[in-house]
Amino acid sequence: MTTHHLSRRTFLAAAAGAAVPPAFSRAGGALASLVPNSPPSSAENWKDAGVIDLSRSPYAKLKTVPVHAVVIEEGFWSQRRRTNLDSSIPSMHDELVAHGRMNNFLRLIGKSSAPQTGPVYSDSDIYKWIEAVGFSLQSGDQPGLRQTAAAMIGDVVASQESDGYLDTYYVGDRKPLRMLYPTQTTGHELYNMGHLLQGAIAYYRATGNRDLLDAGIRFIDDFLLPNYGPGPNQKGIVAGHPEIEMALVELYRTTGKRQYLDLAGYILHGDPRIPLRPQQIVYMFCGIPFTDRTRLEGHAVRAMYACCGATDYYLETGDASYWKTLNTLWNDLTRHQIYVTGGVGARETGEAFGDPYELPNARAYGESCAAIGNMMWNWRMLAASGEARFADVIERALYNGINSGMSLDGKTYCYRNPLAFDPSGDSADRHTPNGKIRNPWYDTTCCPPNLERTFASLPGYFYSTSSDGVYVHLYDNSEMNWRLHDGNGLRITQRTRYPSSGDVKLTVTPGTPSEFTVYVRIPGWSPRNTVKVNGSAIPGAHPGEYLPIHRRWSANDTIDLSFDMTVQPLRANRAVNDDRGRIALQRGPIVFCMEKLDQQHQEEAKHMCDYVARLDAPAESHFNPDLLQGVMVLEQPGTVVSPTIDRGLYFPVTESEHPTETPTTLSLIPYYAWANRAPSPMQVWIPYTKV
Amino acid sequence: MTTHHLSRRTFLAAAAGAAVPPAFSRAGGALASLVPNSPPSSAENWKDAGVIDLSRSPYAKLKTVPVHAVVIEEGFWSQRRRTNLDSSIPSMHDELVAHGRMNNFLRLIGKSSAPQTGPVYSDSDIYKWIEAVGFSLQSGDQPGLRQTAAAMIGDVVASQESDGYLDTYYVGDRKPLRMLYPTQTTGHELYNMGHLLQGAIAYYRATGNRDLLDAGIRFIDDFLLPNYGPGPNQKGIVAGHPEIEMALVELYRTTGKRQYLDLAGYILHGDPRIPLRPQQIVYMFCGIPFTDRTRLEGHAVRAMYACCGATDYYLETGDASYWKTLNTLWNDLTRHQIYVTGGVGARETGEAFGDPYELPNARAYGESCAAIGNMMWNWRMLAASGEARFADVIERALYNGINSGMSLDGKTYCYRNPLAFDPSGDSADRHTPNGKIRNPWYDTTCCPPNLERTFASLPGYFYSTSSDGVYVHLYDNSEMNWRLHDGNGLRITQRTRYPSSGDVKLTVTPGTPSEFTVYVRIPGWSPRNTVKVNGSAIPGAHPGEYLPIHRRWSANDTIDLSFDMTVQPLRANRAVNDDRGRIALQRGPIVFCMEKLDQQHQEEAKHMCDYVARLDAPAESHFNPDLLQGVMVLEQPGTVVSPTIDRGLYFPVTESEHPTETPTTLSLIPYYAWANRAPSPMQVWIPYTKV
Repeated sequence: MTTHHLSRRTFLAAAAGAAVPPAFSRAGGALASLVPNSPPSSAENWKDAGVIDLSRSPYAKLKTVPVHAVVIEEGFWSQRRRTNLDSSIPSMHDELVAHGRMNNFLRLIGKSSAPQTGPVYSDSDIYKWIEAVGFSLQSGDQPGLRQTAAAMIGDVVASQESDGYLDTYYVGDRKPLRMLYPTQTTGHELYNMGHLLQGAIAYYRATGNRDLLDAGIRFIDDFLLPNYGPGPNQKGIVAGHPEIEMALVELYRTTGKRQYLDLAGYILHGDPRIPLRPQQIVYMFCGIPFTDRTRLEGHAVRAMYACCGATDYYLETGDASYWKTLNTLWNDLTRHQIYVTGGVGARETGEAFGDPYELPNARAYGESCAAIGNMMWNWRMLAASGEARFADVIERALYNGINSGMSLDGKTYCYRNPLAFDPSGDSADRHTPNGKIRNPWYDTTCCPPNLERTFASLPGYFYSTSSDGVYVHLYDNSEMNWRLHDGNGLRITQRTRYPSSGDVKLTVTPGTPSEFTVYVRIPGWSPRNTVKVNGSAIPGAHPGEYLPIHRRWSANDTIDLSFDMTVQPLRANRAVNDDRGRIALQRGPIVFCMEKLDQQHQEEAKHMCDYVARLDAPAESHFNPDLLQGVMVLEQPGTVVSPTIDRGLYFPVTESEHPTETPTTLSLIPYYAWANRAPSPMQVWIPYTKV
Repeated sequence: MTTHHLSRRTFLAAAAGAAVPPAFSRAGGALASLVPNSPPSSAENWKDAGVIDLSRSPYAKLKTVPVHAVVIEEGFWSQRRRTNLDSSIPSMHDELVAHGRMNNFLRLIGKSSAPQTGPVYSDSDIYKWIEAVGFSLQSGDQPGLRQTAAAMIGDVVASQESDGYLDTYYVGDRKPLRMLYPTQTTGHELYNMGHLLQGAIAYYRATGNRDLLDAGIRFIDDFLLPNYGPGPNQKGIVAGHPEIEMALVELYRTTGKRQYLDLAGYILHGDPRIPLRPQQIVYMFCGIPFTDRTRLEGHAVRAMYACCGATDYYLETGDASYWKTLNTLWNDLTRHQIYVTGGVGARETGEAFGDPYELPNARAYGESCAAIGNMMWNWRMLAASGEARFADVIERALYNGINSGMSLDGKTYCYRNPLAFDPSGDSADRHTPNGKIRNPWYDTTCCPPNLERTFASLPGYFYSTSSDGVYVHLYDNSEMNWRLHDGNGLRITQRTRYPSSGDVKLTVTPGTPSEFTVYVRIPGWSPRNTVKVNGSAIPGAHPGEYLPIHRRWSANDTIDLSFDMTVQPLRANRAVNDDRGRIALQRGPIVFCMEKLDQQHQEEAKHMCDYVARLDAPAESHFNPDLLQGVMVLEQPGTVVSPTIDRGLYFPVTESEHPTETPTTLSLIPYYAWANRAPSPMQVWIPYTKV
């Protein structure tokens, strides 16, 4: 193992509750001398790549910063990441093993006699778990985890066939089905391989170990490239479930082999030899030229992953038709399709996007994986453009629709992330057995390891570099040690209680004093902002933009940011039926919700919609350290509306309900923390009308 | 053929547009002498059974009146029924043949070499079509149709195996799957047989021909009863898709063989030897004791058919636990689950009931078959109780959520019946190919022949008899010639323009003047009503009840009913999210909707929700004979709300939209007539708030 990263001890110390984390306390004084001032040696490239490696991507305006270069210190995300490392990743390993997902590999190498278990995409869950480990190790070695993953990788690699093929489902009697046309549409062979490559690359960037990566390359080089593609002697190819596209581009970035990029482009273009029905083209979000797409539709995760791959392809090729389509789709996303939580996918049927403005709350699908795909896509769009509108989507999804997916104890997960819920309903929902929205295991267990890899990779999303400086995307107590494009070292520390507080102090320390730009993100949700450099206010902060601060920076220069953390009642476009006459409360990046168990007058309020917010009275907020591991809570004046007569389902307008109105205070918690106590009805969107 | 029915000529003459139909014109004067005055001979029982035969059902408070005894004359339903007979039934026959559904039988008897075609339940579509023919023939012979059906029946019967088994799907390689446990849950063998029996009985009651009926009896007697049931040498049984229960009870009613009723009861109770997962129990609505059910859930058609079978079982046994459960479920239906159109089934996923109050409009599933099942169930509940609340549901479903299922030309059908629609959305919906909600064929073509059998059987739903008289359920120009329980003949003619008008004149002519009660239904939607007998007003008419008029009736006594046809704006319970801040307009039994193509300001109204109704101005109605084969239209004062700024999807409450408001008149047509012109956005529930 290399020594560039923090040791586990340091990581844990930083996260163990010290008011002033050790790394932060070191940030003052003569620290500048510690800032490295050298470009990477090519031999060490593997360890200095970011979440994705944009270091040589010609159309990436922003370059990623390696995960290891950013240490998230005690604060909002440290707790979550500690839970991820100590609870989620180990317990998910045990679940995967207990449900036979490793046996699928072991039986192929004579180490298990168990039958094949799980759906066609089961291999990918192992790979995503390895990716989560890989990203974790990028933040500091975990010998136990590393050894566990290494052993699993050994078994995976051993189960690869001599021709490079590797997929534990299509073996034995199912071998003739490999890569047939119908198998390609639903069989997830390329999806599994995409996740293998992503896991292998994350593990390689943490450890330098290429075993799994080389297995992936053998699959591509020996099995896929010779047999599938546009050539006259090759067979048709379709992604089925997009994922392979972004993996191939990342493999190209990692190896420099152009054929991987070209194959990604070929798959994104769609192979005309693969006959697809219109419904398949919609559902799979592949099979026709990506640049023919005009709207988000079909399976939400497929669509998001396809957009990731297409943006990756654009970042390498600069193909303008891709950028145009990606912006068309992004506008569709943000104008018609995204939940206020950053979740996407309105329909359970087909796990799909709905019509424009079709955003039901209780029936919201909002699969955790789709919100993650949304974040991953916007991360790529941000890199391509440097525009803060993409970072706003990342933050919204991250703090809300993704963060909700993992329980506070890290051991159970949401597959769906609805914005309203009644545990007494919905007994038939396969993702809500017995009214439980959080479960330790799903037979389709895509979401849990996806959440784990996301939290493990989080440090890589805080900063980017550009030709003229550095971008600050996310805020939390943290320290970045990295360098500018000219090789000048750069340390940035953040000290903040964000998102409880809107105040963030950045300390900027270049290796050598020099002139460059620090782009600080002004969140789109913050209407009033102040920015001070070394104590002096500077103008120009606009919500939803980066404020460029161009100057000569010297050690310990400070930037004080102050964002507006006033609670904001939000309304939705009138075309969103389910939100009509309702508000959602947001404070900073956090969207809030009401759980019935926190409310007064539980007897009088038959339904959650009987709790009505007063628009004329603002909410108050305070931090409750004893609730849900410490959360902001909101108190919103309102009333409980209890009908005095049961008018039934439909009645003439002339027959008023004459409800009783009881003043009350509505209590809200962050949406991400819902369903961590006893089952209870929940709503994000609160009525403000009594009708 | 027998002579008790109207000839086709008479039927058509009655329906051909004469202002005073021939049958009706004969109703005056010395008609009393024509009224028969004799009880049925047992030899003719087969022709005098109603839609279901309750003549000997001990717990049926009301007895059915045969289809042939009621002639629907020129008016609202005659047009529909003529289209059904002349267009729908013939064209659906051709579709069934063209899609190989008859070939499935023919290949078993060497008349076709085509492979098996269509889903597991394809046989049932043939049987439902035969049932539609059977009911049609009960209203008058159609030699061509009869011969076509007779030939099909011949082929069906010929394809029956020697042990009684008959299902064209489970033959050849699939034969080993017959009635296995998993096949029983999804394989539809008993569902198909249930429809065979219903079709056979309808055809038998029209023609006296027992060929298909005897084939069904052989299946039950030779194949099913010896092998499946509670006995130690019998195997477990589960309906899978309820349907066989009501068919077995009707077979019991038709043959008197108690074993059929007992087997229905056993299936309704659930066979403990069949292991089912909780999700299956919810979805299939069978497999556990029916009397353990506390809510409607799972597949809507399955649930409705199960309720039909359970009510049939109650009608024969009087089991109080069934009646209790049925009322619990009915309360759930009407308080939480029914659309204002009488449709049921909120969710596409699982074609299922949703949570209480989950009644989305655009995403409403509202399968035509489920609305029909709802009507069939309420018909049985009405028979058990004589309570008008059940007739109100029948009328609501019939005029709206069922009637919408067939196009005005009778050649295309809705599978889903949503309450809002945008043809530009939803490209992936398998029931809305290319935005078309009405299609001539679905691979699952359950709805079209179900609609056809319903319209064909409609005369049987107008009246019932009871120990003390006669019940009038539905209103339309018509003539009933039947008898009271004491054998006294009874003719009732209705003269009305219902539902255009709320005035109905009944002429009551008993064979012999006698004392009995005429129960006239006062619709639940009519707040103000007058009832006159021979010109003198009588008190006691209450909405949603039958008004009993007990007196000595003599030839040509008249009852004048006047219902309140004021347009009623309806609101929904606040707990129905999708209807919040919206009204639906109902006039008489008809629910109305807006199609955009009828509206002014189509440019300004970007979405249908931009059309806003004024609550302070009532709608006006008039009949437009030139529109949609003649419909009532409503003109509702309103405004078009067009936002001047696109605020996007979510925005702070403080940032008002400041929309422009343009006065307009909203034009509405009956919901049943929507989507019969160019594709156009549609909504039933119209916003009345501008937020």
